[in-house]
Amino acid sequence: MDHQIFVDALDTPSIIIDLDIMERNIASMQAHCDALGLAFRPHIKTHKIPAIAHLQLEAGAAGIACQKVSEAEVFAAAGIDDIQIPYNIVGAHKTARLANLAAYNRISVTADSEETIDGLSAAARAAGVPLRVLVELESELHRAGAPVERAVSLAQKIAADEHLHFAGVMIYPSDVSVRPTLQEALRRLDQAGIGVDVVSGGGTGAALHAAEVPELTELRVGTYVFNDWATVTKSCAAPEDCAMSIRTAIVSRPTPDRAILDAGSKSLSSDNSGGVYGHIVEFPAARIYRLNEEHAFVDLSACSGRPEVGDVVHVIPDHVCVAMNLHDEAHGVRNGLVEVTWPIAARGRVH
Amino acid sequence: MDHQIFVDALDTPSIIIDLDIMERNIASMQAHCDALGLAFRPHIKTHKIPAIAHLQLEAGAAGIACQKVSEAEVFAAAGIDDIQIPYNIVGAHKTARLANLAAYNRISVTADSEETIDGLSAAARAAGVPLRVLVELESELHRAGAPVERAVSLAQKIAADEHLHFAGVMIYPSDVSVRPTLQEALRRLDQAGIGVDVVSGGGTGAALHAAEVPELTELRVGTYVFNDWATVTKSCAAPEDCAMSIRTAIVSRPTPDRAILDAGSKSLSSDNSGGVYGHIVEFPAARIYRLNEEHAFVDLSACSGRPEVGDVVHVIPDHVCVAMNLHDEAHGVRNGLVEVTWPIAARGRVH
Repeated sequence: MDHQIFVDALDTPSIIIDLDIMERNIASMQAHCDALGLAFRPHIKTHKIPAIAHLQLEAGAAGIACQKVSEAEVFAAAGIDDIQIPYNIVGAHKTARLANLAAYNRISVTADSEETIDGLSAAARAAGVPLRVLVELESELHRAGAPVERAVSLAQKIAADEHLHFAGVMIYPSDVSVRPTLQEALRRLDQAGIGVDVVSGGGTGAALHAAEVPELTELRVGTYVFNDWATVTKSCAAPEDCAMSIRTAIVSRPTPDRAILDAGSKSLSSDNSGGVYGHIVEFPAARIYRLNEEHAFVDLSACSGRPEVGDVVHVIPDHVCVAMNLHDEAHGVRNGLVEVTWPIAARGRVH
Repeated sequence: MDHQIFVDALDTPSIIIDLDIMERNIASMQAHCDALGLAFRPHIKTHKIPAIAHLQLEAGAAGIACQKVSEAEVFAAAGIDDIQIPYNIVGAHKTARLANLAAYNRISVTADSEETIDGLSAAARAAGVPLRVLVELESELHRAGAPVERAVSLAQKIAADEHLHFAGVMIYPSDVSVRPTLQEALRRLDQAGIGVDVVSGGGTGAALHAAEVPELTELRVGTYVFNDWATVTKSCAAPEDCAMSIRTAIVSRPTPDRAILDAGSKSLSSDNSGGVYGHIVEFPAARIYRLNEEHAFVDLSACSGRPEVGDVVHVIPDHVCVAMNLHDEAHGVRNGLVEVTWPIAARGRVH
């Protein structure tokens, strides 16, 4: 017993992962994709921890997705082979590193412009390694992505490039509303005689409705592994499906209805849903209404009990992915004991 | 020339510090405090870089402020002696580390409750090192801090504790509106026969009006060293006083009026002022209206020119402190060359 680490001994703020819940989440999303006949490609932006990616692959995932070349390097170094970067990789330095990765790993990447494709082609040629490129379609998010006609023309450009392989289409999020776009793109690509290996969709909400978009061949989902308070707010998960919380201490009780926590925007991030920054497990009626960097402002007025200075509570953050990115390590716990402490190896990989 | 690093060669996103502007900011805030006869204690939460703290001390600063014990450890290890933590340090592990620090460094800390004072006293007793404690007064921020009557009673408790030294009062922000509170607190402490070494105020905005709060003996200011777009928005600095920007690339131009940058909330943070996440130096009429983790959504409709995919621009973030915390290094530049690359040594120090 002396050589066990009790959760209660962990300093605040610290990231706690409930391993039972996480394992259940990994199994259920994999079963969901298996039932739909979809390849599952977990997005590692949520956890940024290679050991968790390996658990996802052991459960049946086909590969992973990440957003940056420098993230892909972390996971490639941890022995993960199939890595997709659903992002325009732009700039000679980044494309060279991407092409280097492709020499040892099965790498795919996306593009939504001729400039991106030209850069990928030049890097693939220089490295002597072909690159697999999907075209990103525009969704109702109106972020990156090309409309169908331009996407087909980009696909033709990729298919005609001797250093690139056209690998399919990608869209985010793949809500049911995108189905006409996908159908039109696939019809036009077929007319153009261009083969489509992969139709890649993504998003935690979209995953629940993936059966209604049968054109998809694979799903990229990240948040499901932990879930967060935004996922709960959107009715995509229940509170008991939230595996990650931040252990934090009450450091001030200036008034009967106000508490201050030692987890502020430097631990939880400033992301919020309608002004709510997270959920306090022990005081579900409490409301985190404001964050400074090292202070969370909590309104206790609706609570039956009151925490005291020094008490420890657990906050499920609004947005788990950005909260993970703020910490250097996460503690996997079960039955009140720390089973594993993982470095968040891909934290801060901005390049 | 071959052995110089040109700014243009830096990958995106990367933090760029204009050294001329930073040095000017350091000198001018020090001169401002000198003119007022105030001790100046820069808050290192903005830069988190020991080398910059040393520049601030060489310019005349009396010591530094930081917010966490683990941050203080970084700066103590870098040879900085006088460190104030204007925060309730709660929990036996943290107070023990604080007391250990006080054996080798001049440490002061704040408290706003009996529980915090009891913890500090126990740690000081165990370490055999007295701790210097200021009482935090409540300000109009309504964060932590005690009202005057309770503050006086806490000061008495500290003064009566053989392991603690009552070092004064602290308030944040020390806007002109707090003056009556400070006057009342000082009058009551004087009546109680309690000596006050330090009256510590803080805040970039408050610093400009410090002359109107003559009770102050020292100022804690952080953001001034770089400034940010929120500081400019609040008219506390001009755009040409902003020393820090994030070098970022245009990775998508999906429509004539939309650009996507490769610096999202994982580089800039989600902090914003009225929905504006930062300012693009090269396109001052552009508006960063939304961030995802790796995407900034930019509205170009008001711009005369248009950037292309692959172009690089510089974003002054809304809130520089949290943006610094997201990166591992910062590049100090002058005349287009990188003069120094600093690890952001106290980044992620949450404990």
